[in-house]
Amino acid sequence: MTQQKLEIPAAAGLQEAAGPVAPTPAALSALRPLGLDRVRLGAEGLLGRWRRRNAERTLPHCVDNLHAYGNLGNLRAAAGEDGHDFAGMWFADSDVHKTLEAAAWQLATSPRDAGLRSFVESTTALLARAQQADGYLNSYFTVVAPDERWRKPEWSHELYCAGHLIQAAVAAGRTGASPALVTVARRFADLLVERFGPDGVEEVCGHPEIETALAELYRLTGHRPYLDLARRFLDLRGRGLLGHGRFGSRYYQDHQPVREVREVAGHAVRQLYLLAGMVDVAVETGDLTLLDAAERLWADAFHTRTYVTGAHGSRHREEAYGDPYELPPDRAYGETCAAIASFQWNWRLLLATGRARYADEMERVLYNAFAAAVSRDGRRFFYSNPLQVRTGHASGGEEAAARRLPWYSCACCPPNIARLMASLPGYLATADDGGLQIHLYGDASLEAPRGRRVEMRTDYPWHGRVELEVAEPGGDGGAWTLALRVPAWCDTYAVSVGGEPVRVPARDGYVRLTRAWTAGTVVVLDLDMPVRQVTAHPRVDAVRGCVALARGPLVYCLEQADLPPGTILEDVRLDLAAPITAGHREDLPDIPVVITAKGLVAHTGESLYAAGAGRERTGPPLTLTAVPYFLWGNRSEGPMRVWIPVAAAG
Amino acid sequence: MTQQKLEIPAAAGLQEAAGPVAPTPAALSALRPLGLDRVRLGAEGLLGRWRRRNAERTLPHCVDNLHAYGNLGNLRAAAGEDGHDFAGMWFADSDVHKTLEAAAWQLATSPRDAGLRSFVESTTALLARAQQADGYLNSYFTVVAPDERWRKPEWSHELYCAGHLIQAAVAAGRTGASPALVTVARRFADLLVERFGPDGVEEVCGHPEIETALAELYRLTGHRPYLDLARRFLDLRGRGLLGHGRFGSRYYQDHQPVREVREVAGHAVRQLYLLAGMVDVAVETGDLTLLDAAERLWADAFHTRTYVTGAHGSRHREEAYGDPYELPPDRAYGETCAAIASFQWNWRLLLATGRARYADEMERVLYNAFAAAVSRDGRRFFYSNPLQVRTGHASGGEEAAARRLPWYSCACCPPNIARLMASLPGYLATADDGGLQIHLYGDASLEAPRGRRVEMRTDYPWHGRVELEVAEPGGDGGAWTLALRVPAWCDTYAVSVGGEPVRVPARDGYVRLTRAWTAGTVVVLDLDMPVRQVTAHPRVDAVRGCVALARGPLVYCLEQADLPPGTILEDVRLDLAAPITAGHREDLPDIPVVITAKGLVAHTGESLYAAGAGRERTGPPLTLTAVPYFLWGNRSEGPMRVWIPVAAAG
Repeated sequence: MTQQKLEIPAAAGLQEAAGPVAPTPAALSALRPLGLDRVRLGAEGLLGRWRRRNAERTLPHCVDNLHAYGNLGNLRAAAGEDGHDFAGMWFADSDVHKTLEAAAWQLATSPRDAGLRSFVESTTALLARAQQADGYLNSYFTVVAPDERWRKPEWSHELYCAGHLIQAAVAAGRTGASPALVTVARRFADLLVERFGPDGVEEVCGHPEIETALAELYRLTGHRPYLDLARRFLDLRGRGLLGHGRFGSRYYQDHQPVREVREVAGHAVRQLYLLAGMVDVAVETGDLTLLDAAERLWADAFHTRTYVTGAHGSRHREEAYGDPYELPPDRAYGETCAAIASFQWNWRLLLATGRARYADEMERVLYNAFAAAVSRDGRRFFYSNPLQVRTGHASGGEEAAARRLPWYSCACCPPNIARLMASLPGYLATADDGGLQIHLYGDASLEAPRGRRVEMRTDYPWHGRVELEVAEPGGDGGAWTLALRVPAWCDTYAVSVGGEPVRVPARDGYVRLTRAWTAGTVVVLDLDMPVRQVTAHPRVDAVRGCVALARGPLVYCLEQADLPPGTILEDVRLDLAAPITAGHREDLPDIPVVITAKGLVAHTGESLYAAGAGRERTGPPLTLTAVPYFLWGNRSEGPMRVWIPVAAAG
Repeated sequence: MTQQKLEIPAAAGLQEAAGPVAPTPAALSALRPLGLDRVRLGAEGLLGRWRRRNAERTLPHCVDNLHAYGNLGNLRAAAGEDGHDFAGMWFADSDVHKTLEAAAWQLATSPRDAGLRSFVESTTALLARAQQADGYLNSYFTVVAPDERWRKPEWSHELYCAGHLIQAAVAAGRTGASPALVTVARRFADLLVERFGPDGVEEVCGHPEIETALAELYRLTGHRPYLDLARRFLDLRGRGLLGHGRFGSRYYQDHQPVREVREVAGHAVRQLYLLAGMVDVAVETGDLTLLDAAERLWADAFHTRTYVTGAHGSRHREEAYGDPYELPPDRAYGETCAAIASFQWNWRLLLATGRARYADEMERVLYNAFAAAVSRDGRRFFYSNPLQVRTGHASGGEEAAARRLPWYSCACCPPNIARLMASLPGYLATADDGGLQIHLYGDASLEAPRGRRVEMRTDYPWHGRVELEVAEPGGDGGAWTLALRVPAWCDTYAVSVGGEPVRVPARDGYVRLTRAWTAGTVVVLDLDMPVRQVTAHPRVDAVRGCVALARGPLVYCLEQADLPPGTILEDVRLDLAAPITAGHREDLPDIPVVITAKGLVAHTGESLYAAGAGRERTGPPLTLTAVPYFLWGNRSEGPMRVWIPVAAAG
């Protein structure tokens, strides 16, 4: 067993509690994240409530289920401590690692949570015992199939699991939650360098994740071979090393070299984790061809294959991207993990380039596809996040469930939710000597370098008014810039400083206010939030003749629960000629802002096909209630739809 | 080895060359099919040309591939004749059986085809040698997994393969092509009765087929235990005997008893073969609860889950039916085998009840979903038969191929096509003492009982005029009835007898002409065939705002091949204000009737989502050419669509 010292990059200057993605000082990074512990979410804001629910409900639920479903038992069996039969998927270890990562991020702001600390310590110790003498750590291939170790890279998920172990260790290292976990992960990472490094075998993993993980481990440790190995895995991809497999090489993005590919393809989560790794390696190595490729694929993904909720994945069969503009709302396979991966990828692109469009996508996916995956009580989860559930839907099992389930046989999503929720403060803002850039709005206190502190007070996303008080201007009294994102959804906004309106046009998506700030100055950004009638590109056949209602960053939906008994949701039409309003409604006290509109019920006959256009006749009007998509399915399991057919103009 | 005499049901009176489905005299059967050899398809009619192409191209191609892909080698290995490694799917034997069945039907009208006869004889002999002493016959479970025999009914397809062997034997028995094949099949069937019969185990097969096969074997042999076993398999279904499996018990229709289920569900081919068996058993046992259930499921399938082409199956993931009205054209999984199974099921319902709606569906699926599966040259095939292929479609392998492939790793469809094409004459008409009922029109000569012969001359489906000459009125000179189906798609038609118009309203879908016919009398049925603009039920979200163009029984489509270079098919809109015409066009000489319309090209921007309705602007007009759907993909691999978005009324 080799022991290592924690190497810190020479010019590190890393904050002790850096959050997810901490570019080294040498990295090509337009923006520098605030540390996770430099952003304190307010208790009453939506983001703060989500994170608290995560800490109090979701994370303990995940820990309980790691016990109940045998994931921890698998590791004990790997440690030779009991005769436990292997339980669950062959990559069940990754659920442990993701939960550990979540716990580590949470401990950054809840250092005295004894239960969480005990979970991290005992699980780290278990992992250390389950680790083999050479550093290998994977309970399935230790307990069930030792002869298969490293033999089926297209299928085994060994490097995927290693990647999540490393991500957990990075979180544990950055937050100080567990130096021992860093040791475990590095022992495994060193084995990977030995086996897969410059003198090693030419192989890649069927499920990307190791690439971004190794880049992050390099950032934590300064140990260059990790970064080199991440790059090598990217360089080797697209040479057909994985073979054709069941779904063809596109499925695992092995059909073309990563620098040459022009379209997102295959399994969405794999594609998105791979893209995250491409950006990490690009900025740390200065290899701009990787960044160019990632941005090119971003354009393809977000111009042709992303749901209005920010979800990715149009096909259940291979959990995959579809053809361009193939975006069926009912058969969306918007895996929660893909939403998370998209959020993480966009964060990397935002840091690398400073372009607001990446923050826009973070916001969209956060408040819609991602947020919808968790129940209000924090203990039930969606997997595929459809945008429509039909009357008569037969669930077909976990993959097309119309209700959130407490756990899954493939439980990748719940602990993934836990780690993103726990690390949420790390994504709100960036800062440097020149100032503070705010990308996501929420009730929070932000501490930037040089003693600058800003208090952000807002009811976002329910209302568009954001107050930012420069509580401590910091440093030398010199000028610095407060940059505030104006979301792409917002057409009209107002800015005032100290009560005085200022006219500062947004440039590249940000309003930039440069001042020698004095303590107590309040900046108000007031983003207009009218209800928007969103239409899709005309090539999206699946939602022709429909609009989606949205307000601010939130997409809304209709639910059966809000229709009169006997009304079939599929027969409801939206009357665009009538007013559409938004506000609080006493009959729905738990939802701060509800959209109210007028609709009609279409009369439909029995025959499936008939000659002659204009067969639809609409009947009496009714009031339509649209609720935030992220809250759907919390009242009943009934039908739901985001895209609402528009009544023919009368 | 037991030897059996061919028992013939007491009151048999079967025609020697009865075709698929030959109800016993005791059966509850409203109609009685003409024998396969009593219908001679004309050489120039579309049906006759299809059948000839099948005999000359498709069937030999299948035989060649049974050699090339190892199916016959598997059987030689099972016979202990060579050390061949097992090749292909574990149910590869079924491809042999289906090809044998096709050959048997073909031999009914091509008795001197020496190559076909030799294939039947040598393959039958091979099967006999591969058969085990107890009658068991399955090369996979003989060669690869003898210990697994009968142990995995949810997966093994053993009874499915047995069913296709029996179907081949039934064809061979009815046509006289191979009494030896009947012996082989009966030896296996007797083993099934012993193992699964009244005193045997309670098991069913994950893939239905055995039910209809055993009922047909009973019809051929009169041996009641076969029918009883078919019924027993139906009775045992829906009790969860198959377990939950990968896709849940709905996948293989084991979620509810067959008499209680109210919706089609799961794997479409399995559902449809099961339904065929239900009708067979219902009419032979008099158990009307089975027929009621089948008709109830028919209403569900055809009112909520059938494509306009007659295809069944909306989901690639489980090759399954979707929710009601879930009918995505691009992701249709209209497996060719499901089209064939639907045709066979509707034929059984037509015979049982005499209701025209079943003949309507036979016609629709025959000329569209089924016919499209074969290339013009008869040697390439579609599997999933989508109704739309997008620009930029990435094939994703065999299951979503945008072009016909010569063969498939799961090659169930090509030999299934061969058996339906070969048996086509058996489906055109029924007859009894009271007269002759014509269900499908085509150039053909029909010989009914009592010496009645009718010559049918028509260019159907290209033109709606059908001439029927009573060439031999037959028998005693008494009156009999000629019943002619008026398809549901036809609003206007005319009938004349001997040149004199007659006004006989269609009743229940048939015009019935009762006369004491004299030789040479010509009846003309003239079905109006205007171009129809077909719309789907408003709940079919996937084609909202679109029409399909149809004429007679044919659905048409747009292909990239007919668009100006640079025009994206997805941007084309149909102008309903302009005339839509049909006729022969010199620029497309191979297609008898082409539809010509006017269209517009929509201008579309880059953004995937935008606020505000009415974002689509249309540009200059263009001429649109629609070709029969069944001919698509014969010129190029380009995009195609059946459902055409309609231009906003200007």
